[in-house]
Amino acid sequence: MPGPIQSIERAAAMLRLLARGSGQYGLAEISASLGLPKGTAHGILRTLQRVEFVEQDQETGRYKLGAALLHLGTSYLDANELRSRSINWADTLAARSGQEVRIGVHHDGAVLVVHHVFRPDDTMQTLGVGAMLPLHATAFGKVLLAYDASLARDRELTSLTRRTIVAPQALERVLTQVRANGWASEAEEYMPGEASIAAPIRAFGGLVVGAIGVSGAVDRICDSASRPKPALVSQVASAAEAVSRALSN
Amino acid sequence: MPGPIQSIERAAAMLRLLARGSGQYGLAEISASLGLPKGTAHGILRTLQRVEFVEQDQETGRYKLGAALLHLGTSYLDANELRSRSINWADTLAARSGQEVRIGVHHDGAVLVVHHVFRPDDTMQTLGVGAMLPLHATAFGKVLLAYDASLARDRELTSLTRRTIVAPQALERVLTQVRANGWASEAEEYMPGEASIAAPIRAFGGLVVGAIGVSGAVDRICDSASRPKPALVSQVASAAEAVSRALSN
Repeated sequence: MPGPIQSIERAAAMLRLLARGSGQYGLAEISASLGLPKGTAHGILRTLQRVEFVEQDQETGRYKLGAALLHLGTSYLDANELRSRSINWADTLAARSGQEVRIGVHHDGAVLVVHHVFRPDDTMQTLGVGAMLPLHATAFGKVLLAYDASLARDRELTSLTRRTIVAPQALERVLTQVRANGWASEAEEYMPGEASIAAPIRAFGGLVVGAIGVSGAVDRICDSASRPKPALVSQVASAAEAVSRALSN
Repeated sequence: MPGPIQSIERAAAMLRLLARGSGQYGLAEISASLGLPKGTAHGILRTLQRVEFVEQDQETGRYKLGAALLHLGTSYLDANELRSRSINWADTLAARSGQEVRIGVHHDGAVLVVHHVFRPDDTMQTLGVGAMLPLHATAFGKVLLAYDASLARDRELTSLTRRTIVAPQALERVLTQVRANGWASEAEEYMPGEASIAAPIRAFGGLVVGAIGVSGAVDRICDSASRPKPALVSQVASAAEAVSRALSN
C-alpha cells in the first residue's frame, strides 16, 4: 500500500495553520512555520489559491483561508461565473454544429439552464435560460447524474414519454456507458420529436460542474437509426473539453 | 514557475464532491465522478483520512467530510489526545535526562501545560498540568512562537525578570535562531534560578502542535556559561522527534 501523499499533507497543514490565530500569514511565515523551503510552500499555496481554498490579500500579500473552503457545501462555480467563462465556447459550438446550445448545472434535483444559444438558422426559439430540465431524461441531466453518484441514488424516475428511462437499473447501465464514453445522449426521452447530446464540463481535479450540449428535432441530432450523429458528438465533446480547459486556467 | 500540484487539486475536488448532495460516497462513486483510477482515488482518500479532512463510515464504507475540516478553526489535536499519545516519550525523556518534563500547547495567548512528569530524583514537586506559562519567556513558548507567526505578531512582552526579552526585535532574532536550531532555551527569563529547553512536536505536513522539554534549576539545565547543556538539548530534540513520528503514524 503506498504511503500518504506528502503534498496533500502539507496542504492540509497549511490550511490548519491559516485557520489559527489571526488567520493572515505571509509566505515566509508559512514556510518557516512548517519547515518548508519557500519555493515548496509557494507551489502549494498557488495550488490552494487555484482551487479557492486560500486567498491572498491584495494589499498585504498575506494568505488567508478562502471563501470556498469556508463554504464548502455550496457549489464551486455559481451559474453566472460558469456562464461568463463558457459563453464564447457555446457560441462556437452553435456556429459549428448549426444547432442550439445549452449549458446546464445541477440545481435542486434538476438541470438548471444557465446559458442558451439559439440555433443559427432559426429565430423562432424561446430563450431557455433559467429553465429546469429533468435529470434522468435529458443528455445534460445524464451527464450530471453520471458524475455525481449522490444525485443518482434513490431518484424517482418520472415517465415523460414512452421512451423515458424509468427503471433504476436501466438508468444505471446508461450512466456507466456515459462515463465510459465521456458524453450522453437521449432521443425522445424528454419530449416527443426532440433529442439532445451533452458532455461534462470539468473544473480542477476532474470535478464535473456542468454540462454543455446541443438539442433539437430528432432528425437534426440523430441519424436514421435514432443514434446521435458522430460529427455532433465530436463537436460537443470538443466544446466541453475547451470549456474545461478554460476553467482550469 | 511550476504548475499546480495535481494531487492537491484532486484532493480539493474530492472534498467539494463530498460536500455535495448526501455527502456520502463510496470509493467507486468517487473515482467514477472524478474520472480517476480507483487506486489513485484511494491513495488520496487515505491521505485525507489521515489529516482528518475525510472520515469513512464504519458500517457502509462510504466516505464523508471529516469533523476536522468542518471545524477547521479549532486546533488539530486536543490536549488530551496529544497527552495520551506522547506520555511514554515524556516518561523516557524524564528517565534519561533526570529532569522534570513538560508538554505544552498554545492556548489563549499562553502555554498550557498538558502533561508533566516529575523529576525522577525528587518528590517535592507540584503537579503542573493545567498551568499557563508565558509564551515569550519560556522555552516551550518560544517554540510555539517560532512556528506560528500569528502568535508572535503584535505581542506585548511583559517583563518577568531582569532577563526577560522585552524588545520585539530581540525576540524576533531569538525566534529565527530557534527555527534554525530546531529547539529553544531560556535561563532565568521566566523565574530567577530556573531554566528550560524545549523542542517542537510536529504533526503531518510539519504543523507544530506543541512543545516538549525539560525545566529546572539553572545549574541542572545549563553549563557554567548559562548555556543549555548539549546532552540535554540532544535528549529533548530526540524526544520531540519521537513524539512527532508517533503522531504521524
